[in-house]
Amino acid sequence: MSVHFRKLALIGIGLIGSSIALAAKRQGLVDVISIATRKQETLDEARDLKLGDIYTLEAAEAVRGADLVIICTPIGAYESVMKSIASALEPGAILSDVGSVKGHVVKTLTPLVPAGISLIPGHPLAGTEHSGPSAGFPELFTGRWCVLTPGPEVEPAKTEKLASFWRAMGSQVECMDATHHDMVLAITSHIPHLVAYNIVGTVADLEAATQSEVIKFSASGFRDFTRIAASDPVMWRDIFLTNRDAVLEMLGRFSEDLSALQRSVRTGDGPALEAMFTRTRAIRRSIISAGQETAAADFGRPHETAPVPDIAFVREHDGGEDA
Amino acid sequence: MSVHFRKLALIGIGLIGSSIALAAKRQGLVDVISIATRKQETLDEARDLKLGDIYTLEAAEAVRGADLVIICTPIGAYESVMKSIASALEPGAILSDVGSVKGHVVKTLTPLVPAGISLIPGHPLAGTEHSGPSAGFPELFTGRWCVLTPGPEVEPAKTEKLASFWRAMGSQVECMDATHHDMVLAITSHIPHLVAYNIVGTVADLEAATQSEVIKFSASGFRDFTRIAASDPVMWRDIFLTNRDAVLEMLGRFSEDLSALQRSVRTGDGPALEAMFTRTRAIRRSIISAGQETAAADFGRPHETAPVPDIAFVREHDGGEDA
Repeated sequence: MSVHFRKLALIGIGLIGSSIALAAKRQGLVDVISIATRKQETLDEARDLKLGDIYTLEAAEAVRGADLVIICTPIGAYESVMKSIASALEPGAILSDVGSVKGHVVKTLTPLVPAGISLIPGHPLAGTEHSGPSAGFPELFTGRWCVLTPGPEVEPAKTEKLASFWRAMGSQVECMDATHHDMVLAITSHIPHLVAYNIVGTVADLEAATQSEVIKFSASGFRDFTRIAASDPVMWRDIFLTNRDAVLEMLGRFSEDLSALQRSVRTGDGPALEAMFTRTRAIRRSIISAGQETAAADFGRPHETAPVPDIAFVREHDGGEDA
Repeated sequence: MSVHFRKLALIGIGLIGSSIALAAKRQGLVDVISIATRKQETLDEARDLKLGDIYTLEAAEAVRGADLVIICTPIGAYESVMKSIASALEPGAILSDVGSVKGHVVKTLTPLVPAGISLIPGHPLAGTEHSGPSAGFPELFTGRWCVLTPGPEVEPAKTEKLASFWRAMGSQVECMDATHHDMVLAITSHIPHLVAYNIVGTVADLEAATQSEVIKFSASGFRDFTRIAASDPVMWRDIFLTNRDAVLEMLGRFSEDLSALQRSVRTGDGPALEAMFTRTRAIRRSIISAGQETAAADFGRPHETAPVPDIAFVREHDGGEDA
């Protein structure tokens, strides 16, 4: 039942990497954590935050002797990371990642993985709109899913060991085919983000006077989209570059449906609009029942803030006391 | 400075109506609150919640002797409400509403308003995805905007009195032209809701197996859309029926932008995607600075929920303790 690794190497130390470091340490899952990142500044930040035990700018150095290596960089950096660590990997090690697209990861990494290394791509479905080493917190994975997409060549015992590691950090683990993962995530995550980025972009193109009013009155719906559209730009660029086919397929469906809805608005078809707006409620109830969401009104956002609080005031109330 | 009405009549007692009742009572803004609604069941619920002093199924009876009347029904019911109350309105009374579209309201109500009554349409930009009399709470308007759209014929003192009423309930008040209101709300509220309803609808059309996985993995972005798409269907039907022109104009811009973004995905234009995803971040920062949003990660959603909590458990944690 209890899972343990001697040395965990984290390549990249953003929101996910830092949260893994904090959760693995808190749960006593590893003896040593080594952290590698490309920028000195980020490395210094990770050290100041006491996220690990070893800090280096050389990924190869970080992975030496590690029995678990997790790549936590943007997907676009995987190939160069892999080339630099391949020869330094410890035989028998598990090699995993936390990228949001899995088919492309398998295609990129597989030819570069040396014999004796178990490649088990992973994707923790957890995150916030904040990025960087200081954004991490050890509860990030609690109650959230982690999907693993091991190929058929991987020993089941290795997959089970990695699954236990994620469970010990609070996740529920599910294994599936990489292609299937990418299709499900296209609709649950990638299209919502694309649409949110798009609507915020439409506002960014409005003339300045209107734009300032949109910001002023954003609480009426728009601000929810801006949260999603505040996520890490490089990570999302890479997601859309690497999960193109599934995204375009789902975007096609979305656009067809939007055209139909637009026609209902244009023709003033009240019964069609009401029917559409009614059946979507059931989906939310299912999500709350499935434990994937709070039932609190407005996400449990604080409602007793003072009129026109300044930023400092809002920060002070991070905790989110509800009405 | 201090504002006071003898009798406040609320026609319709959903989320907004009940919140006005609770806030006005708490702040001592009125002597008597009379509540009218069409359904006996809703009226009984309002009485059980002790929202007012007088309860009736006859709107005309509720408004008799009232110096402030606020229509809080869906917009589609305005014409029939107005016809039934017109002859019972007290000369000198202020007549207002809380509907999300203002141009249509002015057009519908103006010809039916008797002389001596000041029609000042209003729109509190506040709400949650919950509806009905029990969804209300007195802090709903705190720190939120309320837009008033008085016509040129209204005495400024009447507008100022209504504005003071909203300020006393915690709102910030802004006056503007009804048509301008409808254009700003189309982009801040109506298009975000339309898009959210649309994406949830796309999921509702997926085959059952995929749909259950979408629900399972909804935390990766989709669930934010389901909250918006869980709002009251009749209210939203009426919004799209009555703000058609502004909605179609803004939807046109949204669709053009989405086509451009789709092309960037199809052609794999990384720099264009990254540039787009970067500039949208600035908009969110402006919204947080403007005090319209919490800076807490993930809206301050609770992150320390146990794995697979059941609904009861989630409700218990409504307060939203953050990490």
